[in-house]
Amino acid sequence: MIQKPSLFSFSIDAVLLGRFVRVPIQKGNILDLCTGNGIVAILLTTRTKATIDALDIQPELVELANRNVLMNQKGNQVSILEGDLNDLPASVQQKKYDVVTCNPPYFEKGQALEKNLNPHFAIARHELHCTLEDVIRVCSEQVKYKGKVAIVHRPERMTDILLLMRKYQLEPKRMQLVYPKEGKSANMVLIEAIKGGKAGLETLSPLMVFDEDDQYTERFKEVYVRQ
Amino acid sequence: MIQKPSLFSFSIDAVLLGRFVRVPIQKGNILDLCTGNGIVAILLTTRTKATIDALDIQPELVELANRNVLMNQKGNQVSILEGDLNDLPASVQQKKYDVVTCNPPYFEKGQALEKNLNPHFAIARHELHCTLEDVIRVCSEQVKYKGKVAIVHRPERMTDILLLMRKYQLEPKRMQLVYPKEGKSANMVLIEAIKGGKAGLETLSPLMVFDEDDQYTERFKEVYVRQ
Repeated sequence: MIQKPSLFSFSIDAVLLGRFVRVPIQKGNILDLCTGNGIVAILLTTRTKATIDALDIQPELVELANRNVLMNQKGNQVSILEGDLNDLPASVQQKKYDVVTCNPPYFEKGQALEKNLNPHFAIARHELHCTLEDVIRVCSEQVKYKGKVAIVHRPERMTDILLLMRKYQLEPKRMQLVYPKEGKSANMVLIEAIKGGKAGLETLSPLMVFDEDDQYTERFKEVYVRQ
Repeated sequence: MIQKPSLFSFSIDAVLLGRFVRVPIQKGNILDLCTGNGIVAILLTTRTKATIDALDIQPELVELANRNVLMNQKGNQVSILEGDLNDLPASVQQKKYDVVTCNPPYFEKGQALEKNLNPHFAIARHELHCTLEDVIRVCSEQVKYKGKVAIVHRPERMTDILLLMRKYQLEPKRMQLVYPKEGKSANMVLIEAIKGGKAGLETLSPLMVFDEDDQYTERFKEVYVRQ
């Protein structure tokens, strides 16, 4: 994977999302929104033969994602598309997907931008071009009935996420919390919903990133390091 | 504590709720709904000098709770009251509390009653006399502005709980998930909300009950066993 520190490097979040979501193995189609450098889409190719459309609003990231797809020889499975999720390309809008994934911007527009943040970071991290509600609405519009939507976000927003999912007929079914280490509060939440699903949320075993010696835990390595 | 197996014994849930909720130390007043044998109210006396009203709808449990209060010599701090939370005694209704706690029935009315369940169990475990919405609405009505409401429930209902809390101006602020052991899904969730609080939920370090040798974990013993 090529990453540009001046653009936006993938972090643990995207990798965990790519491992967490349940996908059809042999066929189907998947949409990855806010794809950035394409990491979620490329990771998913190791778990599914489904075709994958991956969208980002930033031309520089779309170019980078395209190079990553080619470098990983996934050009016949993954299509990187430039576009705004609030104004989807016609080719995406007319489809319904088995699975929609998204690693959206985490910070609300009203929150102060971090100092000296370059515009690429700002768009990827703050809700400048799309709000959390936009993300969840579009996920719901593009997923098939009984299809799955999975996102990764900050646990601080959990109430908003669960409310918005239900507002758009996405029933939260599986959740996993990620904690930096024992004794600390969670800093990431993975949530998978089913469009038109029955109420009832399962909270999977928590994932600790570091052990008491500040080394990756065995469970984290199983998820994060395996290829 | 006196418990009657034919009535309803307190379990881990109530003890964890009594430890989890933040309470004023020196003064104030607390309401415990669905108090059962009074365990939450009695536990709270070890952490606060606030006066505590504790309500249950079942006369047999009210009697048991009263005996437990007397046995623990807490008669001047805890008042056990018989009453329906949907038709509160006037003495409760006219007050506003700093903190309201509740360990409500977990199962919806529509769900099949467990076989041979005696009526005391049925009322304590199924939403026969009050729904989750009733519980959260009444918690909100009886708590002061900026006061705290804490409940323990099944994680399967988390979406309902967070939605209903926000519907009744209770903003979820602290959550802790309890897992039977490593690798298993959570089977309990503790949630504390603040009436009129700002959005933003903290998910505290998860609590594991058993270690791999099926012994209580050290962290669980710290919370559960200490008096």
